[in-house]
Amino acid sequence: MGSTVGVDVGGSSVRAVAFDQAGEPGASYREPTPDDPAELPGLIFAAVADVVGANGEVDPATLVSVGIPGQVDAARGLVRHAVNLGIGDIAFPLVSRLHDLGLRRVHIENDVNAAALGVAAALGGAHDSVALLSVGTGIAAGIVLDGQIHRGHRRLAGEIGHIPIDPLGPLCVCGQRGCLETFASGTAVAAALSGPDRSTSALVDARASGDPVAGAAWDGLVDGLAWATQLLIFTIDVELVALGGGAASVGQPLLDAVRDRLTERARRAPVLAAADMAAHLVLAPSSAPVGALGARLAAEQLGI
Amino acid sequence: MGSTVGVDVGGSSVRAVAFDQAGEPGASYREPTPDDPAELPGLIFAAVADVVGANGEVDPATLVSVGIPGQVDAARGLVRHAVNLGIGDIAFPLVSRLHDLGLRRVHIENDVNAAALGVAAALGGAHDSVALLSVGTGIAAGIVLDGQIHRGHRRLAGEIGHIPIDPLGPLCVCGQRGCLETFASGTAVAAALSGPDRSTSALVDARASGDPVAGAAWDGLVDGLAWATQLLIFTIDVELVALGGGAASVGQPLLDAVRDRLTERARRAPVLAAADMAAHLVLAPSSAPVGALGARLAAEQLGI
Repeated sequence: MGSTVGVDVGGSSVRAVAFDQAGEPGASYREPTPDDPAELPGLIFAAVADVVGANGEVDPATLVSVGIPGQVDAARGLVRHAVNLGIGDIAFPLVSRLHDLGLRRVHIENDVNAAALGVAAALGGAHDSVALLSVGTGIAAGIVLDGQIHRGHRRLAGEIGHIPIDPLGPLCVCGQRGCLETFASGTAVAAALSGPDRSTSALVDARASGDPVAGAAWDGLVDGLAWATQLLIFTIDVELVALGGGAASVGQPLLDAVRDRLTERARRAPVLAAADMAAHLVLAPSSAPVGALGARLAAEQLGI
Repeated sequence: MGSTVGVDVGGSSVRAVAFDQAGEPGASYREPTPDDPAELPGLIFAAVADVVGANGEVDPATLVSVGIPGQVDAARGLVRHAVNLGIGDIAFPLVSRLHDLGLRRVHIENDVNAAALGVAAALGGAHDSVALLSVGTGIAAGIVLDGQIHRGHRRLAGEIGHIPIDPLGPLCVCGQRGCLETFASGTAVAAALSGPDRSTSALVDARASGDPVAGAAWDGLVDGLAWATQLLIFTIDVELVALGGGAASVGQPLLDAVRDRLTERARRAPVLAAADMAAHLVLAPSSAPVGALGARLAAEQLGI
């Protein structure tokens, strides 16, 4: 049996992690995501070769499991609508391109779903269900029920970014008004900042220095994340909601603020109190390579 | 092996249906729901005795499965927060009361969850997942994934009525503002009517006669149901959403209006178009006794 590699394709970097038979992460490799998606298969191959290859060759029996943004059709090996990677309406045949390069055992998975499975594993197995609330350029949730990714009938499960939460809210790029994403996303954070650093951490600083636009954006972010947590509990009723993604990497201060908002909501509405939402919102573990880990687990569960 | 009876406890009537070994419904019995919950066990016993008893006696081996509103703890046999039945914070020990009356094999299930399982069965087995969007006094969804009720970690799955959809919307009884229930529920419909008939069908008539308050309430109902359909697809991604419940019993005109709203939304927002939501919204079958049928199936699946 060959080795296993989990690959996490993000908007800014591609990360490959080798796993041993026991599932422990070993060598890892990271490089910037290419602008042109045509370069992506070669770059994934190079990353895999770096962590498990010998002389630039990869054992064809190596299982390579790739978490990648967008609408992922694992059965056909196709990726669509990964806007940050330059992949649009026209399906990108990632799996067949990797086959062409000599990788024979390839699985692809939506990146948030893969990361959710990795988060659930990293949090430990005592939880019956976990959602990763992933705040990146947009916002989406990965849902793990009974240890398995819940993909849904159209692979749309957890695509909560374009659910409207305010009929008078900002016009969204999607064409609707007041979508969750217009309040709680990296894009919403960046829009409130004018300096070179448009991260959530820069938003925290700008707000602390009294910038009213930053203050309003922070409130919108916190409100949106509290709303999303409530949504995930009162719709799917997952045990834990884990806050993660690049735009949430500021970590504890954001978690504390969202928990406070949830506690405030529960005080106003007894129907919410019993769910004890604040206690069930946690940070996604940042120490483990959850994207690569989850991609590997997803392939393993599917018997690939 | 004894017989099987499914019981559907509603706000206005209690319905018992006997099922044969093949799961086909036989004798049924319906009577008004008592005002005092203390009378409920006796009434359920009488209904069961009517459909499968002999001389007012019921074979103790008879499986009795009861769908009932509220927060249902099947393991302990307790019901809470069934406001329309007069059951509040203090748990009502329905199962032990039925045991006391001589029914030994009893299962209880939340009524919307039970009905969702019945709807999924009545729609046929080709669908991987179905949500019953049930519009009664309030609004809630019953979720069936892979043929099983999805109850969630706290038994809150599908309790979508108190998710806020408009921060400037009406104050809700729950303490929040603009909950889905303030737009799409029997209560919201009734609030817009002044005559003795406060049904959705009366709302349709009032709107047709030019009543502007009824017109606005109809728009709110249709918008709310379109939003709820979008929520169920972009969160759980069920294959079908079935519209049911007393306040939706007007049927086709409501279905048509919600479908039109979904088509309109999809025209504005391409991200919604691919889900083809209008085509996946159907009416819950009204011919089958879905509540009793689902209660029976739920008990059967649990091996009770």
